[in-house]
Amino acid sequence: MIYPESDLMACLNRIGPVDGEAGEQAARRQNSLTKPPGSLGRLERIVIELAMIQRREIPVPGRKVIFTLAGDHGVTAEGVSAYPAVVTAQMVRNFIAGGAAVNALAAHAGADVVVADFGVAADLDIQSPNFRNCKVGYGTANFARGPAMSREQAVTAVARGIELFESEMRSAAIGLTGIGEMGIGNSSAAAAILAVIGDLPPEQAVGRGTGVDDAGLARKIDAIRSGLERNDPDRTDALDILAKVGGFEIGGMAGVMLAAAAHRVAVLCDGFISTAAAMLAVQLCPAVSAYLIASHRSREPGHRLMLELLAKDPILDLDLRLGEGTGAALAMTIIEAACRVHREMANFARAHISDRG
Amino acid sequence: MIYPESDLMACLNRIGPVDGEAGEQAARRQNSLTKPPGSLGRLERIVIELAMIQRREIPVPGRKVIFTLAGDHGVTAEGVSAYPAVVTAQMVRNFIAGGAAVNALAAHAGADVVVADFGVAADLDIQSPNFRNCKVGYGTANFARGPAMSREQAVTAVARGIELFESEMRSAAIGLTGIGEMGIGNSSAAAAILAVIGDLPPEQAVGRGTGVDDAGLARKIDAIRSGLERNDPDRTDALDILAKVGGFEIGGMAGVMLAAAAHRVAVLCDGFISTAAAMLAVQLCPAVSAYLIASHRSREPGHRLMLELLAKDPILDLDLRLGEGTGAALAMTIIEAACRVHREMANFARAHISDRG
Repeated sequence: MIYPESDLMACLNRIGPVDGEAGEQAARRQNSLTKPPGSLGRLERIVIELAMIQRREIPVPGRKVIFTLAGDHGVTAEGVSAYPAVVTAQMVRNFIAGGAAVNALAAHAGADVVVADFGVAADLDIQSPNFRNCKVGYGTANFARGPAMSREQAVTAVARGIELFESEMRSAAIGLTGIGEMGIGNSSAAAAILAVIGDLPPEQAVGRGTGVDDAGLARKIDAIRSGLERNDPDRTDALDILAKVGGFEIGGMAGVMLAAAAHRVAVLCDGFISTAAAMLAVQLCPAVSAYLIASHRSREPGHRLMLELLAKDPILDLDLRLGEGTGAALAMTIIEAACRVHREMANFARAHISDRG
Repeated sequence: MIYPESDLMACLNRIGPVDGEAGEQAARRQNSLTKPPGSLGRLERIVIELAMIQRREIPVPGRKVIFTLAGDHGVTAEGVSAYPAVVTAQMVRNFIAGGAAVNALAAHAGADVVVADFGVAADLDIQSPNFRNCKVGYGTANFARGPAMSREQAVTAVARGIELFESEMRSAAIGLTGIGEMGIGNSSAAAAILAVIGDLPPEQAVGRGTGVDDAGLARKIDAIRSGLERNDPDRTDALDILAKVGGFEIGGMAGVMLAAAAHRVAVLCDGFISTAAAMLAVQLCPAVSAYLIASHRSREPGHRLMLELLAKDPILDLDLRLGEGTGAALAMTIIEAACRVHREMANFARAHISDRG
């Protein structure tokens, strides 16, 4: 089934602005609490952002869901990754078995993990309540030699991301969404997206991903340079960028972000690949940006550039470079803490505390 | 009751080195887990540090306790704070009633809060299982005009901090300790300690604390300069520094840190005042340093200098400047997440994941 672009546009049209008045109410509440104004720094700003997104003075984390989207990448044929491509499918099974880092960190955060196959190069045939089959294809084509996918596949990937979020939202309301991924080779696709949107030479956009060596890094730069030259993506057209150098799971992540914003649900971007999807989502609809929270700054050097382009200040800076949604899960615990302070603290009057002299 | 310095020295003598072999075991375990080696960055390093402290390959957070120590400061007479001194006692009651930021954040982290009066300038007469009376005096003297306390009181404050930790440890074993404070005027004492140990001019060590205005900041710098000139603390003698420009709760915090290290329990320093106490503790016994974890980098500018002097890289950087143990409580959730990853993740062999190509 192929989705028309008009369906996608219908979702974009449902994305409205966030609520400045609710943000002001939350800021006033923060200033009434028994602490010097502003002394909880980033925690206060997180709550105000979330109040604007949720359109209420006292936002709630609610049900937390990490979506971990998987897809394979034809560009692995260029020798761009430290791991063989079969690891994508193996790690999907590891997510379902609960043995991956994102499982441990999501459990710590009290978040559900929903694993979705958007383009793994194998029939996974997994029966699990946490697994969704959203497969658009069996891995992308090698973007160093031609487009990664057709424009129709790009639209389908985004549309299935929208559907994925909406079906999960229907099953039970979501308060906070985290968005992660697994896909051997996908840091090459993310670097290519950064190079296009940021108008950067490949060597500035690229990093070591899961830990490629110097020779692999050189191959990665070559593959991206070749991909940009051969495909010539239109940097003003997110769907063209996605089709030419993206990935099925990257399109799906952009779709989840769009749908979450349409439902006024905050989205925590994770690392380099997740944030590449955020750049596409924001290009499709700039209003999405106000619903995006940067959970952390990855060790992948291009991630810093992405966050600057998106004007997002990450909550955490823990030298992570794993993906999966691990940084998003960690940041959820900080956001939940910020909400708890906002909800539970006493105010000066009630606690009989003298205010500033 | 006055404690002899020899009792203090007995505690220092019980502080041993951390266990490098356990750290290596933890590092090997990390490298066997289903993720690229090093890809969880700081989370991996936290677990290795904790393994060394707890002397086991798989460290556990265990019972988490935030000690929030309160004391008043005679230097408030110089107009150095944005809030009146009565707020110290009022906030102690707020901690006991559960209305402060540290209560919300400790609850989020699953940590107990133990509030101890080390020198509040009032008889608090609080009956609560979370309150401890460790009072050394009714506020320090104004260090701008003379010593803040006698050397005997400084020794007593540290010794009572040791006792506080030990009695809590006897009631139930502690796995992670956080150390915070409340004391109007205590950022002046902390800045004076930084100026002495860091050999810095007062204007480099000082900041706005709870939010003093420009005139207040100038008075704060003058008070510290005057305090250093009149009292001439010996920068090689932590007890002399504590007596001349410190605070009862600052001495108590140093004592808690020493006792925790003696019991091989990790200590999370909180903000500017807590870290001033850590500098004193490390000067009393350099081996303490390996048991200290910097939970966050405060917005107070001198905190960055303290962390550099202690060679500690903070876990969080959230622009906090509240104290109480709030940053320590937040960092506990990250440490617990790191332990959970270490304990729960599958390894490559068990999950049938192909290793690096």
